[in-house]
Amino acid sequence: MPEIRHNPITGDWVIIATERAKRPEEFVRPKERKVKPSFSPDCPFCPGNEDKSPGEMFRVEGAKEGWTVRSVPNKFSALIPVGNAARIENGIRKRIDGVGLHEVIIETPDHNGSLSRLPLSQVESILLAYQSRFLAFYQDERIKHVILFKNHGEAAGTSMEHPHSQIVGTPVVPGLIRIRVEEALRYYGNFGECLYCRSLRQELADGVRIVVENSSFAAFLPYAALSPFHLWIFPKRHGACFSNIAHGELEQLAVILKEVLLRVDVGLEDPDYNVIFRSLPPEEGSVKYFHWYLSIVPRVTRAAGFELGTGMFINTALPEKSAEFLRGIRLPG
Amino acid sequence: MPEIRHNPITGDWVIIATERAKRPEEFVRPKERKVKPSFSPDCPFCPGNEDKSPGEMFRVEGAKEGWTVRSVPNKFSALIPVGNAARIENGIRKRIDGVGLHEVIIETPDHNGSLSRLPLSQVESILLAYQSRFLAFYQDERIKHVILFKNHGEAAGTSMEHPHSQIVGTPVVPGLIRIRVEEALRYYGNFGECLYCRSLRQELADGVRIVVENSSFAAFLPYAALSPFHLWIFPKRHGACFSNIAHGELEQLAVILKEVLLRVDVGLEDPDYNVIFRSLPPEEGSVKYFHWYLSIVPRVTRAAGFELGTGMFINTALPEKSAEFLRGIRLPG
Repeated sequence: MPEIRHNPITGDWVIIATERAKRPEEFVRPKERKVKPSFSPDCPFCPGNEDKSPGEMFRVEGAKEGWTVRSVPNKFSALIPVGNAARIENGIRKRIDGVGLHEVIIETPDHNGSLSRLPLSQVESILLAYQSRFLAFYQDERIKHVILFKNHGEAAGTSMEHPHSQIVGTPVVPGLIRIRVEEALRYYGNFGECLYCRSLRQELADGVRIVVENSSFAAFLPYAALSPFHLWIFPKRHGACFSNIAHGELEQLAVILKEVLLRVDVGLEDPDYNVIFRSLPPEEGSVKYFHWYLSIVPRVTRAAGFELGTGMFINTALPEKSAEFLRGIRLPG
Repeated sequence: MPEIRHNPITGDWVIIATERAKRPEEFVRPKERKVKPSFSPDCPFCPGNEDKSPGEMFRVEGAKEGWTVRSVPNKFSALIPVGNAARIENGIRKRIDGVGLHEVIIETPDHNGSLSRLPLSQVESILLAYQSRFLAFYQDERIKHVILFKNHGEAAGTSMEHPHSQIVGTPVVPGLIRIRVEEALRYYGNFGECLYCRSLRQELADGVRIVVENSSFAAFLPYAALSPFHLWIFPKRHGACFSNIAHGELEQLAVILKEVLLRVDVGLEDPDYNVIFRSLPPEEGSVKYFHWYLSIVPRVTRAAGFELGTGMFINTALPEKSAEFLRGIRLPG
């Protein structure tokens, strides 16, 4: 019997096609393996080409020379950093000038690097860059929301090979964030505790969908995972804002993020994926009803009319089986 | 200056990349043109192969012999039509057995037909089939919501060449529908009129985003269109349910749907697209705050981490320019 599962955090109902469920291996997409060079002369993110992306905003210095992580303005930003973000209303119409911040965080000098296979210290440096730029973006009074994300591969929306993440500050609170906060607030009002803390406790108790955990974080497929390898990484300590993370937690986050991505990478043969940080602004970091977290979405399936029309998803894999598969992956080294 | 526009119907903010906006022609995706046969012996939807999709639920008889439109159970349905749809709650967990209805509406006997190029009478027959199955699905007490949609092409989520639509009845109200209804109800509460009627009046007054209209319908790119050729078709007469459409209106809907799709087809060289009917159930058809409509989404761009993370979209075309482009397409014949 197929199941329709409810995700109280998103409000989504997800159809879990239990009977026609595919085996995890069936989601491996054959793709042409391109051997990437470790340096590409035309790549604007490669060392030596720093003048192709001017205006560096942040860097982590290398042990010997040069940088190991840098953040630069996105050349193809849809938003621009000048002007004011006043609402312009005209009857039913409401608009704002496209004021905002958009940077690219170059994760490594190595053109053919991969977040899952970088040294742990490098992943920590990337997270430090995230944290630093996240806080800096919120210093701009025009910015109402900051989103950190990574597009890995073409199906995930990037054609740039060089490993990079992006950070965008918008002068509006995105609708999806508002809806998540409303759901969280409603639950907190009804039950007097954080919906996310409660969900994490339940996931840890169930155990079957946990992929890996450490002292500060747990990575799992949610009970109502939207897609075959839809993963969440929750901090165990309650907090609504990513930038309030303590130094020891940042190390633990690097460990778990690297391991989860490596399991995805090895198990599904380097699929395209997105990583998304969901967080409130620093000034809302101490609210009791919301909880920051990471979402990882390997792009092994595609949204069609049903998903566009309903916001519901059909997951053709059992989250429990997907978690078991990822737990069982033999990691190199 | 880029603009961020608000869509009061969806609650979405959309970044309109006015300065880096592409010309409409730039969204034409080169694709390998396959000449499809008008009959494919292995296609389960071709005439003569009716036994490959048994259990026909509806047909429109042909003038001479055979059928012109038929609706059959989806062989690959994620939901099954037997069982009960009771909520099963266990603490924070909530689930339902995957009970539901799912049919494929075969739009024509011609394997290489296309909705935009079928005779008008055939498009009317398809709409009649939609209406009939929509009403029939709601006769099942377990069904809480019915969604009608069409996936055209691989990027839109189908690999079946034979022209077809789908109809799914779920035992839950999808979250996206609930949110739309909440927004509509809030507006009605605040302003005492239907948000959709008000939006349509504004679009007709502005004129610049209208693609085509007739006595009963208007097709336009919304002010805050999510993507370069995101189109809405609104009925001019207020009504919350598609199946309450009058016979004369159904003809007008066939005319406008065919014309809009033909303009998309010719202008963008047969892009992949989704069509979605958004409607409340028949018993809610007379509510004053909601308005049924069609959404057409040519799949010329792709959602990445920013869209997944925020629910916001970046539209790299000006809706006004896209509308002008579609209005200017020379139609064959």
